[in-house]
Amino acid sequence: MIDWSADRAAVDRALVEACDGLATRLSPRLFDAVKYSLVGGGKRFRALLLLSSYRAVGGSADASKLAAAVEIVHSYSLVHDDLPCMDNDDVRRGRPTVHRAFDERVATTAGVAMVPFAARTAFDGAIDVGRSPVEAAAIACEAMIASGAGGMIGGQLLDLESEGQVLDLDGLERIHRGKTGALIRASALIGGLAARGTAAQCDALAAFGEAIGLAFQIADDVLDITGTTERLGKTAGRDLDLNKVTYPALLGLEPAADRAERLVDDATATLERVGLLTRELDSLARFVVERES
Amino acid sequence: MIDWSADRAAVDRALVEACDGLATRLSPRLFDAVKYSLVGGGKRFRALLLLSSYRAVGGSADASKLAAAVEIVHSYSLVHDDLPCMDNDDVRRGRPTVHRAFDERVATTAGVAMVPFAARTAFDGAIDVGRSPVEAAAIACEAMIASGAGGMIGGQLLDLESEGQVLDLDGLERIHRGKTGALIRASALIGGLAARGTAAQCDALAAFGEAIGLAFQIADDVLDITGTTERLGKTAGRDLDLNKVTYPALLGLEPAADRAERLVDDATATLERVGLLTRELDSLARFVVERES
Repeated sequence: MIDWSADRAAVDRALVEACDGLATRLSPRLFDAVKYSLVGGGKRFRALLLLSSYRAVGGSADASKLAAAVEIVHSYSLVHDDLPCMDNDDVRRGRPTVHRAFDERVATTAGVAMVPFAARTAFDGAIDVGRSPVEAAAIACEAMIASGAGGMIGGQLLDLESEGQVLDLDGLERIHRGKTGALIRASALIGGLAARGTAAQCDALAAFGEAIGLAFQIADDVLDITGTTERLGKTAGRDLDLNKVTYPALLGLEPAADRAERLVDDATATLERVGLLTRELDSLARFVVERES
Repeated sequence: MIDWSADRAAVDRALVEACDGLATRLSPRLFDAVKYSLVGGGKRFRALLLLSSYRAVGGSADASKLAAAVEIVHSYSLVHDDLPCMDNDDVRRGRPTVHRAFDERVATTAGVAMVPFAARTAFDGAIDVGRSPVEAAAIACEAMIASGAGGMIGGQLLDLESEGQVLDLDGLERIHRGKTGALIRASALIGGLAARGTAAQCDALAAFGEAIGLAFQIADDVLDITGTTERLGKTAGRDLDLNKVTYPALLGLEPAADRAERLVDDATATLERVGLLTRELDSLARFVVERES
């Protein structure tokens, strides 16, 4: 097993630092809400993926600020996902959701504020590891694209619109490629770009991220059925309550889990072909399908 | 009087073009909502200010895409301002607000999608007028900063939090510098940056934008009292209904209008000192306090 505690601590520190830089620019309640959503724990999977991809390509600087940027994008998506007009959820990471701890206005506004905040943090983080302003801007763009129309936001809405509708496997995959996949793909890709990987290396990392991103979502769907609210830190059985189309619903529980496993195998094979399958990246890929929360 | 119809038409065209570029990347309803909010008319004041600032510094290329970017930021702010959890308004530019024409989920999501969309459009627009990728990234950053935590979003929330509270003139100005001022300031500044203005020119344009931005908000407060819903294209008397602190409420109607006039005089004097007070910029500054909607 790989010990991620030092990386997690570095990312958490970078998040607090980036956040504190906002203190004088935000109203106190908005600042509190942004910080509340960012420092509430979480697996930091996307950040670890970014750091591992960066190191796989040979990067050796401290990329924790860059890694913090993808966690900010991720946090924004959780805040808005939980809103009353979206999934209307009360619990996240074992704590009240932002609109419960604060209110709906603050949660809506804090979420929006986090998108440019993430772009800024990505830009600064790329400069930190020695990239030029042009390269840093391209990296910040990847984070924005993943959070933008074609990525997460589009997937999120497709997901909401699908509730109660008939959806086939292709339709479901399209949703998840946007909703979860775009940011996980971007995390791996940004790690490669930050270490100035070759086009072949960056393409392989992006493909790896895309595949494990999809596996991640399938595993989430499975966990929603097999997990408990306590272990998940969020309401279990939510998808069924909302009558959402999920992989287990379309394929059955076992075949869905098998599909996630196969995606992970393909993903690691992709990395192996370009010589980037480090122990860290292999471990993260396995974690996607073996985790319990 | 200056005839702005050609500029307005060019900006409207650029908005439609930028928007159509999103078509394949968004779900149909999300795309419809973004487009609905963008092509619903409006004065295009921020776009005209950007174009005029650009030309004042000697820019001669077609900057309509860059100008479209600040209108996208502005549209995002209107969509979220009107949400039920914010001002809860039903009419905007004489049409149903986005969450009325669609629903709250779509309006929330469309608004968020517009922030990275605006950054992308600003970047492309800056490249269009011949700026380097680094310069274009800096310009896109200004648009993001204006829409971000320190700018509009912060001001919007301070505004909401102030409802029913005791607020002095300083507190009110802090809100409006963020809420309306930041983007109007950025529009003038971006025009200067896009034409590669000197630091003194860009500073003067930013100061000009900041002052007329504040005057714009004071005039809005005055119009909310003196205007009609029909002429404004939005619900008149809304501030009073919401028990908001406004300039007329703090200063009285006449002194508030006087203050706006003085700000505009100061703003034009600032430009005159650096030789940038063109007929166009003078006309826009006067429009701020002379408009009827």
